[in-house]
Amino acid sequence: METMDFGKESLALHAANRGKWEVRNKIPLNTHLDLSLAYTPGVAAVSSEIAAHPEKVWELTPRGNSVAVVSNGTAVLGLGDIGSQGAIPVMEGKSILFKQFADIDAVPIVTDLRDPQDLIRFVRAIAPSFGGINLEDIKAPECFQVEQALQDLGIPVFHDDQHGTAIVLLAGLINAARATGRKMTELNVVINGAGAAGSAIARLLRCVGHDPTICEPVKSLIICDSKGIIAAGRKDLNREKEALLSFSNRENMTGTIHDALRGADVFIGVSKGNLLTEEDIRRMAPNPIIFPMANPVPEIMPEVALKAGAAVVGTGRSDYPNQVNNLLVFPGIFRGALDAGAAVITPGMKIAAAHALARYMANPTPDNILPDALDSRVAPLVAAAVKLRAISEGVANTRKN
Amino acid sequence: METMDFGKESLALHAANRGKWEVRNKIPLNTHLDLSLAYTPGVAAVSSEIAAHPEKVWELTPRGNSVAVVSNGTAVLGLGDIGSQGAIPVMEGKSILFKQFADIDAVPIVTDLRDPQDLIRFVRAIAPSFGGINLEDIKAPECFQVEQALQDLGIPVFHDDQHGTAIVLLAGLINAARATGRKMTELNVVINGAGAAGSAIARLLRCVGHDPTICEPVKSLIICDSKGIIAAGRKDLNREKEALLSFSNRENMTGTIHDALRGADVFIGVSKGNLLTEEDIRRMAPNPIIFPMANPVPEIMPEVALKAGAAVVGTGRSDYPNQVNNLLVFPGIFRGALDAGAAVITPGMKIAAAHALARYMANPTPDNILPDALDSRVAPLVAAAVKLRAISEGVANTRKN
Repeated sequence: METMDFGKESLALHAANRGKWEVRNKIPLNTHLDLSLAYTPGVAAVSSEIAAHPEKVWELTPRGNSVAVVSNGTAVLGLGDIGSQGAIPVMEGKSILFKQFADIDAVPIVTDLRDPQDLIRFVRAIAPSFGGINLEDIKAPECFQVEQALQDLGIPVFHDDQHGTAIVLLAGLINAARATGRKMTELNVVINGAGAAGSAIARLLRCVGHDPTICEPVKSLIICDSKGIIAAGRKDLNREKEALLSFSNRENMTGTIHDALRGADVFIGVSKGNLLTEEDIRRMAPNPIIFPMANPVPEIMPEVALKAGAAVVGTGRSDYPNQVNNLLVFPGIFRGALDAGAAVITPGMKIAAAHALARYMANPTPDNILPDALDSRVAPLVAAAVKLRAISEGVANTRKN
Repeated sequence: METMDFGKESLALHAANRGKWEVRNKIPLNTHLDLSLAYTPGVAAVSSEIAAHPEKVWELTPRGNSVAVVSNGTAVLGLGDIGSQGAIPVMEGKSILFKQFADIDAVPIVTDLRDPQDLIRFVRAIAPSFGGINLEDIKAPECFQVEQALQDLGIPVFHDDQHGTAIVLLAGLINAARATGRKMTELNVVINGAGAAGSAIARLLRCVGHDPTICEPVKSLIICDSKGIIAAGRKDLNREKEALLSFSNRENMTGTIHDALRGADVFIGVSKGNLLTEEDIRRMAPNPIIFPMANPVPEIMPEVALKAGAAVVGTGRSDYPNQVNNLLVFPGIFRGALDAGAAVITPGMKIAAAHALARYMANPTPDNILPDALDSRVAPLVAAAVKLRAISEGVANTRKN
């Protein structure tokens, strides 16, 4: 098989098209009548109607179908803090995925603001233009504070690096357990990486802040960062990492990721490539479930993990089975929230998305726990589940303008 | 002729389409290869390239072809201070006109910020996402301060209510003078309305802040606001209106708009409908040039002004000859500035736009001084003149990211 240099080809594609995203007119503008209806004088009636009845903005403008994809470029893909300009290709990529999979009009918005309070103010200022805010590639721990502070905004604010990844991972883990005849509540899990994604996965797997009637917590959880196991007594933990101790590492184990893996049923990696060896897999419980999701190079290559005894391996890559790809949920999550007119994306809506995604696979097998990322039936299904949950929680039609 | 209720039809059009503006993907997203090039992993190379060479953002992303249409809804059309939500239909209308006439990807951005300093900070924060900023429907005098403060932004910032109107009016006046055998430098002009448009027209007609080698000032100028002639000694003038006195009303006339018109060659109205009578027109110099641009009802109806002796009448309406419509310049102005990579839209670029628009009419006649607003050849012509002027002034390729 010929291998393609994706980077080189992608550069050529972006240069040829000056990016991937553009604006389009939904109505004709060819005659004076067209102009009189789209713009002056006719548009004055639309503006007046909305001024008198602000809730009509959702019916008479694109706002209710729009999402801002907001980043300050401080944690872009695996590239890190590359700034606002380098973040644009990622944000417009995300925007066109919103359009393709959920018919949402998403706008890439980048800023150089770095202070969380400045970012919060900025999102508040821009919110009247949009129906939802997708925070993206903002580094931890700032991302937690920004997302949390904005939950009163009146429109959904969702940090996809946290929750998108966590929701797909949960669906994948549910189906990995189904495929191997295990129960979620029996699984001992190790997460490597305590940034945006790792923390959100940890909370979701332990149902922290989640309704226990629809969330099944895993049996135990150990979280590692680049310094090793997050344990009481470590002096280098920030507030966000200390908070993880309330629901992880109950036995206060110390040591490295390699120590943590001893006897574990599940490994979840959101860290860096080439971290684990066959030996690490063998150290785990029999038939472990492995999600080495570092991209493009996983924490351990699937073929190595399988050879060492892993029962299920899911990665971030499309060229291996079981790709854990945010694309499976963020379009549907926002579509469902917008369709519901929800002011927030609640924990229950996130779980509903994960369950809908998991159930989509009627008979998951070890090498087929998640649908293909390009499966266009997934987003409508997730959207319907999210909307339904919003209605049942009384969150529908709560958005404010 | 059947008359159409534009407002009712426009409401129906907006409701049926949920607005007029949407996003589109420029590249296919159907295969895993498509996804690998548009998004991960390929996009990392594009992000890295821009991080290393920030100026490549203009080649590799949509930024260089994009404009934000920014408003706080404090001066929307003739409706006044109706707020951000009522402004959306106007901003998206402007955005689709940018696309239709100049292939610019414009994004409607509204905010509830009202304080000029907050607005300035907001535009600075959002600027890294766009190639230019079109300020729109922000009330005077705040609009002056906001636009002025943002001229160091590194990308063009242009308040269309001021300069768009002024530039088209200048082109119209140049051609009205040509059509009636007069010289600009012989014209005594009265402007009614001292807000955003009136002030900008006043400055442009007197070449204030403009290069005298390309700008011909009218002979004299009197400006009125709702209280009458702006004159030294009035206690109710704000700083912006006082500044107008340095280049208007040299003889310190006092009185009403009706007094001001005595012997004037030109009337320019950016105020409100039904202000003038036949008597006012007869009070002017013979064969006066009249621009009653209030919308939808002009300061005096064209048929009335013509009957009273007006030689040329231009309005804001498309159902009369000589429509003075911003649409004739704002798409071309931004197209030219973006194509030039200019950091600012200079006074010279504005005059160049007006001259290009005026010269487009080879033989202007009293009822044909400006092209049709929908003439698709105008924007490219204006763009070329603006770009050329940017190059000759050394402003090309000065934008910053």
